[in-house]
Amino acid sequence: MAVVGGGLAGALLALRLAAQGHGVDVYERRSDPRLGGADSGRSINLGLSKRGIHALTEAGLIGEVMAMTVTMAGRVIHAPDGSTRFQPYGKDRGEVLHSIDRNELNQLLLDRAEAHPQVRLHFGHRLVGADKARRTLEFETRDGARVQAQAAWVVGADGAFSRARRELQRGERADYHQEYLEWGYKELTLKPLADGRSAIELEALHVWPRSHGLFVSHPNRDGSHTLTLFLPFEGPDSFATTRSEDEVRALFAKYFPDLVPLLPQLVEEWMAHPVGALITTRTAPWSRSDWMVLVGDACHAVYPFYGQGMNSAFEDCSALMAALARHPQDRAAAFADYERSRRPHTDTLAELSKANFVELRQKVQSPWFLARKRLDVALNRLLPRAWLPLYTMIAHTTMPYGDALARAQRQERILVGAGVGALAVVGLGAWLVLAV
Amino acid sequence: MAVVGGGLAGALLALRLAAQGHGVDVYERRSDPRLGGADSGRSINLGLSKRGIHALTEAGLIGEVMAMTVTMAGRVIHAPDGSTRFQPYGKDRGEVLHSIDRNELNQLLLDRAEAHPQVRLHFGHRLVGADKARRTLEFETRDGARVQAQAAWVVGADGAFSRARRELQRGERADYHQEYLEWGYKELTLKPLADGRSAIELEALHVWPRSHGLFVSHPNRDGSHTLTLFLPFEGPDSFATTRSEDEVRALFAKYFPDLVPLLPQLVEEWMAHPVGALITTRTAPWSRSDWMVLVGDACHAVYPFYGQGMNSAFEDCSALMAALARHPQDRAAAFADYERSRRPHTDTLAELSKANFVELRQKVQSPWFLARKRLDVALNRLLPRAWLPLYTMIAHTTMPYGDALARAQRQERILVGAGVGALAVVGLGAWLVLAV
Repeated sequence: MAVVGGGLAGALLALRLAAQGHGVDVYERRSDPRLGGADSGRSINLGLSKRGIHALTEAGLIGEVMAMTVTMAGRVIHAPDGSTRFQPYGKDRGEVLHSIDRNELNQLLLDRAEAHPQVRLHFGHRLVGADKARRTLEFETRDGARVQAQAAWVVGADGAFSRARRELQRGERADYHQEYLEWGYKELTLKPLADGRSAIELEALHVWPRSHGLFVSHPNRDGSHTLTLFLPFEGPDSFATTRSEDEVRALFAKYFPDLVPLLPQLVEEWMAHPVGALITTRTAPWSRSDWMVLVGDACHAVYPFYGQGMNSAFEDCSALMAALARHPQDRAAAFADYERSRRPHTDTLAELSKANFVELRQKVQSPWFLARKRLDVALNRLLPRAWLPLYTMIAHTTMPYGDALARAQRQERILVGAGVGALAVVGLGAWLVLAV
Repeated sequence: MAVVGGGLAGALLALRLAAQGHGVDVYERRSDPRLGGADSGRSINLGLSKRGIHALTEAGLIGEVMAMTVTMAGRVIHAPDGSTRFQPYGKDRGEVLHSIDRNELNQLLLDRAEAHPQVRLHFGHRLVGADKARRTLEFETRDGARVQAQAAWVVGADGAFSRARRELQRGERADYHQEYLEWGYKELTLKPLADGRSAIELEALHVWPRSHGLFVSHPNRDGSHTLTLFLPFEGPDSFATTRSEDEVRALFAKYFPDLVPLLPQLVEEWMAHPVGALITTRTAPWSRSDWMVLVGDACHAVYPFYGQGMNSAFEDCSALMAALARHPQDRAAAFADYERSRRPHTDTLAELSKANFVELRQKVQSPWFLARKRLDVALNRLLPRAWLPLYTMIAHTTMPYGDALARAQRQERILVGAGVGALAVVGLGAWLVLAV
């Protein structure tokens, strides 16, 4: 069988399928990232959380992967006046995130896949066609040649602009939704101090929330942090108006003065790094007969603001393997089962990821939001099984996304009800006091 | 300049632009429909209403077009027991729809375009590429040859699967949404009686609403009606389960027994006619610099259930011409103005068209819905300026779709308020009666 795409989900799935005895051909459009020349300045750090950990554990890789990570115990919020505040990610050390370099993780997965006798990797193979009847895939190689390959079945793990999806849905009544955020992103580096220590708290994700711009940073093992600046593409103080060196300096002086001393190479990096765009996609169907099925960004690209892109893609691999195990004799049924049980939850994740953009930018600064968050955490400590904050369920459990949201909404109703009840008691008390 | 697509919107726009002195090349993928071989069994009747009438009037074509139509004064609802009920479309003879044959109308527009010295028609030209920098379009002709054409600017009027849209949005952060209805459609013919009279009321749209299937018919000038059956693609009593002659007869005996005697050729037509799919699309942007802009289904395909597909496409032509007139020296500004002022309204139309699918299938049978409809019409007669039913605003005015919906929602709130007020009066009365 074939896996189209040798990124995180494709490489992991190849390993899982090979372990079950399948012969797996992995076709990747780009050249081998282990030979150098990986994309520079593009989303190189990710936060590994429970769902991803679970999938890597199933594949027997978690030990090696964990050794590559830096723990993030919570968020450090940087206010405009330079003051900071720490928000833990959960109630204890078991509820943390793990910062990991995307390229390093990808290379580890590719190494393991290549070492497996059942896996063959084909780099520089861009999918250009698929023939379901003949069960063949057609690729264009780097030198422009066309290559045909047989494949009993195919997993499309080729990202948000998936060509496999297009081939799968050709001639079908396919639903497809894509939306770009009006904000783009640019990556910058916060280097360690001369003595090698991190310039800011290492074991945390840092956030500089501004209504008009948002910095998020992930720590690296060398003490550096990868900063991602999210900013509007157009309009005042946007990527469009921040092109010259003076404009870059003015933008930072206005919104992020506390970062300026930490970024001596700011202007050089700004000029050298591209501006990335953020897309969210939804689609259906995810599979076609017993021949092709999609995982990860190929069927549900989400904004990065819940830190669940990689984690949900890895969880897709677990879900697909589980569905194949439930239907050992009927791959078409397994694909349909996988899509039916999984798609509602990734739809929920897309909505949560959009909503968290607002939360990260604005709400983490609001006293009401912080009080609400503290109450959530306090209730969780008091009732660790009965009360779970939404963030905890998404990041620190493998509860399906939709179930997590439904439970958070039930909890919200209880809180609102309790709030109304409390107000009624207070009001009754006041009335009694006044009346007596 | 060039218009891609020689359908209804493309041909009308070519005429409008030629009248302003532009030299217009119209490129149409299909061969000339006037030479015969037009699509058979595909959405051949449409209901022309105010917005379309307005656009055809601007083009000086309304007299000729009206002569091709059959008036529809309202809907005739056919209940399962064979009984019928008439719902007028408006409060008087000015508020009616006009049934028209899509191919006849298209041919008239093409005849007029061809007769204009400023217009050149190119059939059998399928767009395959566009080069904005060089301002060229590339087409593939019927014999497989590639043809390059210069175009100072381009209007994409090439339908729901617009290739012009793809070229316009290539490399852009484009939003795009497409959704298929789980129901498809098939067209059948209700022939006139032997004496040439219509077998059912001629001057009406007929609806056979069933929760599980929906027939809609448009009258033709020869006394026949074009019936469109909407039915689920899959599941029990669907297109998938209605393939054999016996299955066709069983479906009609179960849901549409009153139609069976009127359709002696039912089984033959069923076997010969294809099943069509229904798509709704939304997208942005609609234009690129001063070089390309979209109209009609190319930027907003809607379900047919509000009868506004053609009307909104014609209205796009009016809106684009008006925007070009507002910015005579700046085509890019005209395109942006057109999109900004028009897109919110076609988004509203898409939602209304979805909602009317439910209305046509289910609500037209409900006593509450009918009472509400009658109240709307009664208020409209009483207060012809102040009170306008939503349907009236959509079909019989050129008020922007979004404004029409907002006004209908305000009216709804007034009715609900009045209802609550009336209930309060009744309740108070009852309480007084009981208390005394």
